[in-house]
Amino acid sequence: MTEGNGAAIPAVGPEEGKDLPPVVSIENISRFEGQEVTVQGWLYNLRQSGKLLFPIFRDGTGLLQGIVAKKAVSPEVFALTRELTQESSLIVRGTVRADSRAVGGYEMDVTQLELVQGVPVEEPFPITPKEHGVEFLMHHRHLWLRSQRQNAILRIRHEISKACRDYLDGEGFILVDTPILTPAACEGTTTLFETQYFDDKAFLTQSGQLYSEATAAAFGKVYCFGPTFRAEKSKTRRHLTEFWMVEPEMAFATLEDAMKLAERFVTFVVQRVLANRKRELETLGRDVSRLEQVEVPFPRISYDEAVEILRRKGSDFEWGGDFGGTDETLLSEEFPKPVMVHRFPAAIKAFYMEPDASRPEVVLGVDVLAPEGYGEIIGGGQRIADRNLLHRRIQEQNLPEASFDWYEDLRKYGSVPHAGFGMGIERVVAWICGLEHVRETIAFPRMLHRMRP
Amino acid sequence: MTEGNGAAIPAVGPEEGKDLPPVVSIENISRFEGQEVTVQGWLYNLRQSGKLLFPIFRDGTGLLQGIVAKKAVSPEVFALTRELTQESSLIVRGTVRADSRAVGGYEMDVTQLELVQGVPVEEPFPITPKEHGVEFLMHHRHLWLRSQRQNAILRIRHEISKACRDYLDGEGFILVDTPILTPAACEGTTTLFETQYFDDKAFLTQSGQLYSEATAAAFGKVYCFGPTFRAEKSKTRRHLTEFWMVEPEMAFATLEDAMKLAERFVTFVVQRVLANRKRELETLGRDVSRLEQVEVPFPRISYDEAVEILRRKGSDFEWGGDFGGTDETLLSEEFPKPVMVHRFPAAIKAFYMEPDASRPEVVLGVDVLAPEGYGEIIGGGQRIADRNLLHRRIQEQNLPEASFDWYEDLRKYGSVPHAGFGMGIERVVAWICGLEHVRETIAFPRMLHRMRP
Repeated sequence: MTEGNGAAIPAVGPEEGKDLPPVVSIENISRFEGQEVTVQGWLYNLRQSGKLLFPIFRDGTGLLQGIVAKKAVSPEVFALTRELTQESSLIVRGTVRADSRAVGGYEMDVTQLELVQGVPVEEPFPITPKEHGVEFLMHHRHLWLRSQRQNAILRIRHEISKACRDYLDGEGFILVDTPILTPAACEGTTTLFETQYFDDKAFLTQSGQLYSEATAAAFGKVYCFGPTFRAEKSKTRRHLTEFWMVEPEMAFATLEDAMKLAERFVTFVVQRVLANRKRELETLGRDVSRLEQVEVPFPRISYDEAVEILRRKGSDFEWGGDFGGTDETLLSEEFPKPVMVHRFPAAIKAFYMEPDASRPEVVLGVDVLAPEGYGEIIGGGQRIADRNLLHRRIQEQNLPEASFDWYEDLRKYGSVPHAGFGMGIERVVAWICGLEHVRETIAFPRMLHRMRP
Repeated sequence: MTEGNGAAIPAVGPEEGKDLPPVVSIENISRFEGQEVTVQGWLYNLRQSGKLLFPIFRDGTGLLQGIVAKKAVSPEVFALTRELTQESSLIVRGTVRADSRAVGGYEMDVTQLELVQGVPVEEPFPITPKEHGVEFLMHHRHLWLRSQRQNAILRIRHEISKACRDYLDGEGFILVDTPILTPAACEGTTTLFETQYFDDKAFLTQSGQLYSEATAAAFGKVYCFGPTFRAEKSKTRRHLTEFWMVEPEMAFATLEDAMKLAERFVTFVVQRVLANRKRELETLGRDVSRLEQVEVPFPRISYDEAVEILRRKGSDFEWGGDFGGTDETLLSEEFPKPVMVHRFPAAIKAFYMEPDASRPEVVLGVDVLAPEGYGEIIGGGQRIADRNLLHRRIQEQNLPEASFDWYEDLRKYGSVPHAGFGMGIERVVAWICGLEHVRETIAFPRMLHRMRP
């Protein structure tokens, strides 16, 4: 990877034809103790102490401290290293040595350093170790991602996405991608992004659920996992206009099945992050003791019980209302792990929710609230299976009937009890990483006043 | 999963409190030979022969033939089974028996059958075993997905998506989701879907590449994998307006690295499908002998050589032109496996492509053409690393400079040679499944005249 074919960048040329030491990733450096290796990356930091220079390199997979001794390298390399500026790109060679004091536990005794591109002193990398304002950082998001904190968050996001897929794939769910461009809204129409679709109008999807109900009848157990959109004018620390959701859906399944799946799914994801992303959680200073308590079963409370809890805690919340962020926080405080709230008033939930046969004013829905005040991470439940009831609901809510003809077909041709849920990835990342604001949970967040870079 | 809690569906009630046989998936039926099991699904087909009924059940994971002998079941169950209509939903119990003549190699001696929802005779399932026109099937796509052929295609699609992720994850790539809503176009502006983004305009992404270049500098090796959009008015068998792309990007990498990654990646994906989706490929009648030849290395030809091949084959193709579908087919006919065409004229490629240092009129791009006339499945190459050159290209192509300031920053702060590519999932599904048209490669295709269901 060092051939640099065609790279129109001034560089201290590689010594061609020589048997060069292997290029390794810093995250794998421990495997190369005592060996000579090549690291390709950027300067993260530089300290000097007499005739020793201590550059810290980053390559995107970790940090590695180098030791450049004046007597061990050529005068040119020593001079070059001493003048290195933050984020200059370079190729460095040396021998790996264990040192428990060093970041990551290893150091490199540098023998050769080649500059790929120096960042000029008069135009330095804008993000320095000093504090920057949020607006400044968001404006430089493409560069901010190089910080150790943002790197750790997005590596954990990667692990979470992968864990979601691995769990569902392992349980026999089939990934069936649902469309982004849709002719009708799933929930309400006021928060939709609209686009001209040739001679027609299209809306950006808010959820793949309705489509997944069709594919569940074709494949048994399915999931979709993609971006979803809400044109909400809210400016809270929990809202993005573009966010990713994973939505499993099962045929021949009930609210009970959805709740069982939800608790196993969330537990698997949390345990996977704890197992594989210890270093990243440390970088974030995350207290993992709370995460370690996440295991099945999760506590379950009915909406009625949730209202009681709120009132006992001094809230004047009335039966029939929808929980706000404060209510969710009050509820989640009561439990050491995620809590499942089920059986909501029909009036505050979506048209497709199956009523409880024994009590038709509530529906078989479930929300999962994360601990530590992170709010709702999952919403789902059992869907209406009866054709006439579904048709009535569509009419009651004044939904465009023609757009839902195919959805009603699912209740005409071999309808079955079915259930599922959607989990918002950004909320889960915020919770597991312990973040104040969802804007750091995705590489390029889209918010009310932010669509760049 | 048989509790049916709240399902407002008339059903021959389950016998509650009894110790019911386990619910199994048909794809796992072989593990239950000689045992009594429960299968939940739909009626796929029904034959009668005297006092024996042969219903074929589908549950989304496979087909299973049942044998309902008049003397083995109650008169009610026999009568119910005899009148079953296509796609009626049901729960069936019986004992699994191996029979090499049966579809899938197993049969079930049915002891109990419970109807969940019967499809009425006067309103039958619209898709019958007879031939239907494409428009009819596309209009009923939500139901068409229940056919064995569509089921097989989308299971293979699932396997392909999973193989892409597994390969990249295993090679240390980090998934960094790139935005769908973007302020500027990556390639041209005439084929963009536009939406109002509060007080601003946004466009639906055509590629995550520019963003992945930023994340590659932060993480080393990254990929994005999501939906992309082109508002093209073309109506060919290779075009969708909404399609999924997987796009790996590597820092410190050249065209050579991108080509090596591409051939290993494609080979891994094809071999994974051959290993895990034999049954589905059989359902499609796919001749797998051609797929079995896909292994590294792939043949490589320069654009110049490609032009020579075309002219030798009688085409009047001129140096400097872009390959059309027919040219791609002519080229791919020459090779038993995918062919990599590299070093294209700069004028026909995107502004960000690195020129070949030894020959600046060509750029370090590569296209991978699938065999058997399936056309381009991968496009990529090395990106411009030099700040001044990139700036000049942006000006030459009259791109909005303000929108690209962050992209230029990547060449200001530690620029490195970097490379990557995008692979279109639908084209790969079409090739591996041997399909005539991409409309069958995705659950709910979006095309010029098709946005429903």
